[in-house]
Amino acid sequence: MSFIQPDVGSRVDRRLAGFLETWGAPVDDPDVQAAYRLLADFILNGGKRVRPQLCYWGWRGAGGGDSEEIITAAAALELCHAGLLIHDDIMDGSELRRGRTTVHRSLAGLHSGPGAEAFGQGGGILLGTLSLVWSDTMLSSCGVEPHRLRAAHHVFDAMRTEVISGQYLDIVAQLRSGASVAEALTVIRFKTAKYTVERPLQIGGALAGASMEVLESYSRFGLPLGEAYQLRDDVLGTFGSEPETGKSALDDLREGKRTVLFAYAVRNASPAQLGRLGSWYGNPELTEEHAAELRQILCDTGALARVEEMIEERVHEAVTALATARIEPEAARALALLADQLAHRTN
Amino acid sequence: MSFIQPDVGSRVDRRLAGFLETWGAPVDDPDVQAAYRLLADFILNGGKRVRPQLCYWGWRGAGGGDSEEIITAAAALELCHAGLLIHDDIMDGSELRRGRTTVHRSLAGLHSGPGAEAFGQGGGILLGTLSLVWSDTMLSSCGVEPHRLRAAHHVFDAMRTEVISGQYLDIVAQLRSGASVAEALTVIRFKTAKYTVERPLQIGGALAGASMEVLESYSRFGLPLGEAYQLRDDVLGTFGSEPETGKSALDDLREGKRTVLFAYAVRNASPAQLGRLGSWYGNPELTEEHAAELRQILCDTGALARVEEMIEERVHEAVTALATARIEPEAARALALLADQLAHRTN
Repeated sequence: MSFIQPDVGSRVDRRLAGFLETWGAPVDDPDVQAAYRLLADFILNGGKRVRPQLCYWGWRGAGGGDSEEIITAAAALELCHAGLLIHDDIMDGSELRRGRTTVHRSLAGLHSGPGAEAFGQGGGILLGTLSLVWSDTMLSSCGVEPHRLRAAHHVFDAMRTEVISGQYLDIVAQLRSGASVAEALTVIRFKTAKYTVERPLQIGGALAGASMEVLESYSRFGLPLGEAYQLRDDVLGTFGSEPETGKSALDDLREGKRTVLFAYAVRNASPAQLGRLGSWYGNPELTEEHAAELRQILCDTGALARVEEMIEERVHEAVTALATARIEPEAARALALLADQLAHRTN
Repeated sequence: MSFIQPDVGSRVDRRLAGFLETWGAPVDDPDVQAAYRLLADFILNGGKRVRPQLCYWGWRGAGGGDSEEIITAAAALELCHAGLLIHDDIMDGSELRRGRTTVHRSLAGLHSGPGAEAFGQGGGILLGTLSLVWSDTMLSSCGVEPHRLRAAHHVFDAMRTEVISGQYLDIVAQLRSGASVAEALTVIRFKTAKYTVERPLQIGGALAGASMEVLESYSRFGLPLGEAYQLRDDVLGTFGSEPETGKSALDDLREGKRTVLFAYAVRNASPAQLGRLGSWYGNPELTEEHAAELRQILCDTGALARVEEMIEERVHEAVTALATARIEPEAARALALLADQLAHRTN
């Protein structure tokens, strides 16, 4: 994805690289050092830098000038995200992320024997936590004056609590029978809409000393856009191209992810279709052939079309909210463009 | 364990209870709310509150008066600790902690069916991370003025990076063949000595605006005491009474924990003893009978006596350092008492 100037993504990457160089392994041991390198590789390679970009434009929208402080704060969000992804991949048992082997699988591969698997998981929990700790370190040291930093930190705290609660609801929902559109929408509100769009914008805004009015306008823009973002993610998770997304297009189906897409399919399915969904959705033995059949059901039940429609409705709602927001025009233009790119992306 | 007045532990507990009440589940869902209650129960029940007490006396030693700010900061360390313990129990596959079912096992028990086990682990990763996030929230909002808070946050960042690196080295060491005393000492330096004693003291000190000289004296006291603390922990992990420690006295043996105790046993063992250690140390099938045999080997090789001796040497070193530290006399007395209690505890 390419975004308009200034190129926030590459500035964030350089800041992250600098940060990771200063936080070398405190223990002089080759295996610990290898783990630090693996974590740095994961953080620095791949990723769309969505949250840093939104944080940056949240700051600019609230009148903040282009500065080094906001790049540091934006980069902190990426460290938080990397940590959550590492943990998420352990929970989901995923093999692939950003087109590469997941961190816990890479760690397991460093060793052999019966303990390797458990070691990969344990090491992944630790490295994910380390990245989360560093995100806090980096935000706290971004150099914005204490009063505004406190305000931003409050939003950061809310964001982390929300995303973890949303993820918890997500895994709990998978144990429940049935699938509800309302529940799936609650999950994506907390797990994605607040976490990926609303809160990053508000963190940037709060750092720039934004008024309550501006922060609220970021909610009106961010929540629908964030929902659209996750709905697109769900579509790509099942219908996407693996080389583009860097993730397997079988994972969501095998996990039985309780997506809005799936909930609509269940709602509209015939008894025969319901039987096929029941047999294969969430079945770890699912093959490419079963996946093709399930994808067909998601189309035939109108679920895919409904989700595409929901994406458009939400992008429209977001862009409309933006038009009346009292934010800097340059930021409004950048955010409108971002909204379109995020909702219609292919990766 | 009872400590001298003021009773920091119970004040910390009340502060934690108040904090947890304000951070209720943001998602209106009975399962998410149940998870929050489970996390709060774990945080509030049991635990020796070692780190908060050291943080408190680190502050007092540097001239800070008794205050609400330091109780909040001290309580933050307990949230960090709870999060790390929850993750640690997942990594070790432990059933019992603080005399109760571990968090991930409790979560698994809330559900049934094939997904319950994985759900418990995933939910435990999330709740552990939530507690870690909250520790940062609580420290950042303790109310100490920004300049001193920044200094303390730097120590907090170093502490978290060190403990995670130490834990990583710990699990990596278990995959290595052999057992080295030097390596076991490196693990406990990072995983425990810095994390449990040195850094909590320095965080308290930094919050009170301590000079570099005072912070260094906390290192000279804290590092040997922290090593003694972990050496005692290792002895209790194998020779302790389960009702007192709240942990199984078979866990360390079954995991094959690379303790200093074990390393000395290996160093001094006869070929026959080495054979028995090789068969059963780290063997998940180990029974109470095998455990008794291994305990006998730890005694007969002189490993237990050597570790007890090391504990005494380290307590002596710590108390000697304290005598020349330029800190408030009341804090010095409290810390000397704490040193004795921590090194000779039975739980």
